[in-house]
Amino acid sequence: MNEEKVEGSMRLEPEERLDDLLTHNLKIIQSPEVFSFSLDAVLLARFAGVPPRGRVLDLCTGNGVIPLLLTTRTTAKIDGVEIQPRLADMARRSVRLNGLEDRVAIIEGDLREWKVPEELYDAVTVNPPYLPLRSGDHKDNVHQAMARHELGCKLEDVVAACARSVRRGGRVSMVHRPSRLVDIVDLMRKYKLEPKRIRFVHPRKETEANMVLIEATREGKPEVRLLSPVIVYGDDGDYTPELLAVFYGEAAELPDFKRHNGRAHGPSYAGKPEEDKR
Amino acid sequence: MNEEKVEGSMRLEPEERLDDLLTHNLKIIQSPEVFSFSLDAVLLARFAGVPPRGRVLDLCTGNGVIPLLLTTRTTAKIDGVEIQPRLADMARRSVRLNGLEDRVAIIEGDLREWKVPEELYDAVTVNPPYLPLRSGDHKDNVHQAMARHELGCKLEDVVAACARSVRRGGRVSMVHRPSRLVDIVDLMRKYKLEPKRIRFVHPRKETEANMVLIEATREGKPEVRLLSPVIVYGDDGDYTPELLAVFYGEAAELPDFKRHNGRAHGPSYAGKPEEDKR
Repeated sequence: MNEEKVEGSMRLEPEERLDDLLTHNLKIIQSPEVFSFSLDAVLLARFAGVPPRGRVLDLCTGNGVIPLLLTTRTTAKIDGVEIQPRLADMARRSVRLNGLEDRVAIIEGDLREWKVPEELYDAVTVNPPYLPLRSGDHKDNVHQAMARHELGCKLEDVVAACARSVRRGGRVSMVHRPSRLVDIVDLMRKYKLEPKRIRFVHPRKETEANMVLIEATREGKPEVRLLSPVIVYGDDGDYTPELLAVFYGEAAELPDFKRHNGRAHGPSYAGKPEEDKR
Repeated sequence: MNEEKVEGSMRLEPEERLDDLLTHNLKIIQSPEVFSFSLDAVLLARFAGVPPRGRVLDLCTGNGVIPLLLTTRTTAKIDGVEIQPRLADMARRSVRLNGLEDRVAIIEGDLREWKVPEELYDAVTVNPPYLPLRSGDHKDNVHQAMARHELGCKLEDVVAACARSVRRGGRVSMVHRPSRLVDIVDLMRKYKLEPKRIRFVHPRKETEANMVLIEATREGKPEVRLLSPVIVYGDDGDYTPELLAVFYGEAAELPDFKRHNGRAHGPSYAGKPEEDKR
């Protein structure tokens, strides 16, 4: 069945499958054994402030899910950097499969050493490995381990790489575990990235957050906005309408219920900020 | 009518009134012209981790609302520090009115200069002035201005005073505006207060947070928990059942839906932490 969907000379490795990104007919190559994207990446791709044109960078890009989803929100040129050759190859084949070679480039490289182009990026996104080394799940194979654990890079490496890649006034958006919130904002300030928008994701409305979305502006003015919480499951156990709207692409970005005309954060940003109600 | 309620020799100034704290028959002297407590103080008094006994300090105590409410959650001795003589006097009279002179002491003093007792406190609470000087509402009289604006103390003064008052392993709980979140956690770390529990309060489920509750442990291990959001108003425009439970004292503290036996944060704390679901 996979083969039928694959066009032209596209090759799938034995354990790979072709999944639907559920928006704009985008397809993505995944592998349960190597790498599959998660809700975190989808939410980040909706949350991140990206310019309607310009240049965007996605670090720790994995199988390229974030660059692919971002093509539905911006006509910017998007570079994705991935340290693992196996995943970079998957991502490149997905880009080709969707005919997006002109807009998305996948670069194989280590973000700690990667040479940033002279012209800095307008926006950077990153869904880094979450787990500290100590909490290693030793059942993970090497691909899964590198994507999940701070093996290839530590949080500080990630923040530093974001900071040196983004232009002054440009935005850096990250998804991470809420338990690291204080470390994240601490490191962001250390590297002159000022947190401006934060959104927590709670599995249910009565549970603790298990995900945080955070956007910073390089050399921005200190003042952060705490957006409405994202609740994943309703009381009935199903996805909330808000979540479904994100998944099925009806909401091009996470719904911000109160908006102004977007001027406050620069006129060129598609991610319209919520109105400050205070 | 006020006079009928006032027992014994209790005096009310002309513009003052006696309000019900809606729990444990507690009464409080307020004055719309001088100082009235707000939802922030009530939520902080429910959220704060306080030991069942020991010593608790409330800085910027105003008319003493937080010490009064804390007496329903702990048998600790509670000191309230207030810089304004007019408010300290109101607070003292409210303490007497409720017959709590043995448990609550109101100290008139400036937290920047206040001499901390040799035996440090087990827990500190503070609902500091929120507004930077620049955003002055010039209609405020001097009492309101000092309670609302960073006139008598800046955020860093507040955090520093909390840190030097609390013992190692003791907790500091604060309510503030979410826009200052990054500054707060930054300053807390600077003074060796590690943020451990954060809870955002949203007027409605689809609006940005307008309040943040944050608890830190002096010299605690870095790792913060993001509790479920508090939503104040439901879709019908009325208070949510959760909020009402807090207000009417049915919930002695903010409801934490998932709890363990409290050991993780020290066995002597009444404020039981939520279970980490991740």
